Amino acid sequence: MHYKLTLCYDGTAYCGWQVQPNAPTVCSTLQDAVEAVYKTRYDIKGCSRTDSGVHANGFVAALKTAESLPPDAVLRALNVHLPRDIAVTACEEAPENFHPRYDVVAKRYLYRIYDAPVRDPFREGRALHHPHRLDDAAMAKAAALFCGQHNFSAFCSAGGKIPEEERIRTIYRCSVTRAGDDITLSVTGDGFLYNMVRIMAGTMTEIGEGRRSAQEITKIIASRDRARAGITAPPEGLYLDAVFYDEKEAGL
Amino acid sequence: MHYKLTLCYDGTAYCGWQVQPNAPTVCSTLQDAVEAVYKTRYDIKGCSRTDSGVHANGFVAALKTAESLPPDAVLRALNVHLPRDIAVTACEEAPENFHPRYDVVAKRYLYRIYDAPVRDPFREGRALHHPHRLDDAAMAKAAALFCGQHNFSAFCSAGGKIPEEERIRTIYRCSVTRAGDDITLSVTGDGFLYNMVRIMAGTMTEIGEGRRSAQEITKIIASRDRARAGITAPPEGLYLDAVFYDEKEAGL
Repeated sequence: MHYKLTLCYDGTAYCGWQVQPNAPTVCSTLQDAVEAVYKTRYDIKGCSRTDSGVHANGFVAALKTAESLPPDAVLRALNVHLPRDIAVTACEEAPENFHPRYDVVAKRYLYRIYDAPVRDPFREGRALHHPHRLDDAAMAKAAALFCGQHNFSAFCSAGGKIPEEERIRTIYRCSVTRAGDDITLSVTGDGFLYNMVRIMAGTMTEIGEGRRSAQEITKIIASRDRARAGITAPPEGLYLDAVFYDEKEAGL
Repeated sequence: MHYKLTLCYDGTAYCGWQVQPNAPTVCSTLQDAVEAVYKTRYDIKGCSRTDSGVHANGFVAALKTAESLPPDAVLRALNVHLPRDIAVTACEEAPENFHPRYDVVAKRYLYRIYDAPVRDPFREGRALHHPHRLDDAAMAKAAALFCGQHNFSAFCSAGGKIPEEERIRTIYRCSVTRAGDDITLSVTGDGFLYNMVRIMAGTMTEIGEGRRSAQEITKIIASRDRARAGITAPPEGLYLDAVFYDEKEAGL
């Protein structure tokens, strides 16, 4: 049976999604839980690699098994065997040809920052701490300038050897909102380049600090030059929030 | 100089506040930070012991040093040396005779529960997960019955050898509120017996499950019998939220 699994995880303890030797990853931990349930080690496909320390509210994975258990039973059984920092939040039967990566229509990422004089033990590792007040209005102006179809080479980590045409991506929605000292960057797009959201977050933090103007975003995008954008913000503030497989669900 | 320190900490990694050999405690970790700043190991007094795994939003400690640094500088320096799960959120000069435990007028504890079918990796360890919907209205009725001066022997862990008269405590405020699937028990009193809030939370959870009626609280208190109350809820949902040193501040 073919299942679409939706996962929520705190990525702090994991070297990202992708299985790699001698490192705890979300995929290998999920495979362990699947093995405990099915007594067989199955391959599991993921919707994207996520970096070490990155979190997910709605990561999507696909599991194909020989046995046919009801999706609700699979959800409950996997959650019994998963550690506390990973949970399967939904499990449904998927079409035979469903592919969690190739079938993606859009993804939404969040980047969380909190601007407070003293760090908060309950948000550390789950949001970026900024000790000085950020200008969220300027950041929101900057966010709007990312929308549309652009070549995002300036927001792709150097060393990426992907063809120029694949660097053209469409950002459908991009916003910055504040609730108290919590600032959330939310960005929905048809695809993201390596470290793209973290470079966007790093650049917008510099705008929030007043070190750059919001208007610079347009010039940075046009430059296609990674050196023109800001720093790559650390992984701890990044969440893969939702993955969409049809345009209606994505609100497009 | 004598300082009143207010601490926020995630207690997951600590065996409570109190220094003990061969175990990481909040006090010994704070002493390490103080030693890194002052090059001297000072004793630090705390407002209460907290159990292993219990959290604090506003734990109060007192530090007496030979050197006189400005309180703001002490706050910043300690936060540089403390790990991510502990922060000093306030530091002020305290009167010579200030004692963080003996001078307490009232304390407020929170107990956090969330009732959701699937556990949430971001709340695990910081709130008690309950997989079925709890009747928070019944729990709120029960909470109100704790208010006033009572002998709380029924809500004190067995084995406590404290004199009968010390088991008489006054609860000033006790409430249960819901926001989405977050249920918070908040209780303010002049003092708390060993495991008192955790037994209150365990008993109220059973009321929320419909296994007991809210009205039972009055009878359980009157019985002075620990066996009549519910289970001791696990430490992970408990927060020492605030400690008050004058009645006005406590809203009394």
